[in-house]
Amino acid sequence: MDEVLRRIDELGLALPGPNIKGGNYTPFTIHGDLLFVAGQVCLRDNILQYKGTVGVDLSMKEAQDAASICALNLLAIVNQACNGDFSKVRVLKVNGFIKCLPAFEQQAKVLDGASDLLVSVFGEERGKHARAAIGVTALPRGAPVEVEAVFALR
Amino acid sequence: MDEVLRRIDELGLALPGPNIKGGNYTPFTIHGDLLFVAGQVCLRDNILQYKGTVGVDLSMKEAQDAASICALNLLAIVNQACNGDFSKVRVLKVNGFIKCLPAFEQQAKVLDGASDLLVSVFGEERGKHARAAIGVTALPRGAPVEVEAVFALR
Amino acid sequence: MDEVLRRIDELGLALPGPNIKGGNYTPFTIHGDLLFVAGQVCLRDNILQYKGTVGVDLSMKEAQDAASICALNLLAIVNQACNGDFSKVRVLKVNGFIKCLPAFEQQAKVLDGASDLLVSVFGEERGKHARAAIGVTALPRGAPVEVEAVFALR
Repeated sequence: MDEVLRRIDELGLALPGPNIKGGNYTPFTIHGDLLFVAGQVCLRDNILQYKGTVGVDLSMKEAQDAASICALNLLAIVNQACNGDFSKVRVLKVNGFIKCLPAFEQQAKVLDGASDLLVSVFGEERGKHARAAIGVTALPRGAPVEVEAVFALR
Repeated sequence: MDEVLRRIDELGLALPGPNIKGGNYTPFTIHGDLLFVAGQVCLRDNILQYKGTVGVDLSMKEAQDAASICALNLLAIVNQACNGDFSKVRVLKVNGFIKCLPAFEQQAKVLDGASDLLVSVFGEERGKHARAAIGVTALPRGAPVEVEAVFALR
Repeated sequence: MDEVLRRIDELGLALPGPNIKGGNYTPFTIHGDLLFVAGQVCLRDNILQYKGTVGVDLSMKEAQDAASICALNLLAIVNQACNGDFSKVRVLKVNGFIKCLPAFEQQAKVLDGASDLLVSVFGEERGKHARAAIGVTALPRGAPVEVEAVFALR
């Protein structure tokens, strides 16, 4: 079994099925070895698992969980893109957008919910990524967190 | 005539001339086959076609039109970058930033104004792209929408 | 001496040491010739040099200085990534996120604080970059500006 898929399993997680897209785009594009994955929110079976503003409607723990669901949705798309063979896949860049108020300062801690999952399943060497954490006004469907990423396929 | 340019023409559109840049940057950079295009707002002949907050000052239809003008400005820059030969160009990744209030949830629908145009002119296979739609506080010149993109040149 | 390092020196600047990271990520990743650098705020010796909202707590001059500190932090990371040999390095894409109020329209002018520094040290040909300037709600640690970038290593 693929090592990444095994680690996902060991964490008690499962790759979710595809969610209905909210617009005229595709979950991923590939150019050469580069894989661009569309921004993911915390949908599971097409139902948003958290909604609202981080620090107001969601606690830090809930916001991190929302971010980890985004990351799991990213992984489900990478799985499609690499046909289930993660052996050469690396995480290059992650951008996390967090819906918050102007006084909120912990965007990085929220995004760790996604980064921790990615590093756990890919391991340090292939999982560590550059990233940016940004606090924003609003996200599609009222989501509290959106995470997008660029991967290397080999 | 180039197929992409022909489709732009058939849609009753025309590639706009370059707008005056708002800062110390360049409209595009190329590395290998990758083309990075700077974020575009809804300028035409250096005049912002819409201004303000989507959902407050602009209707959905107006916001989508603003997004499509951003996409047309992207296409004008791609045209420069590929010397008018779009035959091998593909859209890889689009990011759309929408100026809105915290309660606004339809960033994806707004960004479809740009995505629909790109898919129309490039066709499904080369036009479909990964993307992220983000609701933000404010954009340069008071613009309601900003769209940036990464393309493959061949 | 490396030309880029010489120019930094001539500007009376010095590459800062690494700052303590705010989360589970790495300052940069490399894939092929592409270098992805994590979003930088205006930290120097782990102390945020400016805090707050551009146009409210910071003047334009201060905001541009904050942006230039972000760029200097980017350069310090590029220096690590290229082992001090900037001779083939080019700036491809810069994203600047500026904490501001909805009425603020000068995100591009703020980001010029970073772009001007990059163009100064790399020169026009290798320093000119595509970019996007975005006004956002909040940034990690209460920072007023965050800048991330993609570089070509050769």
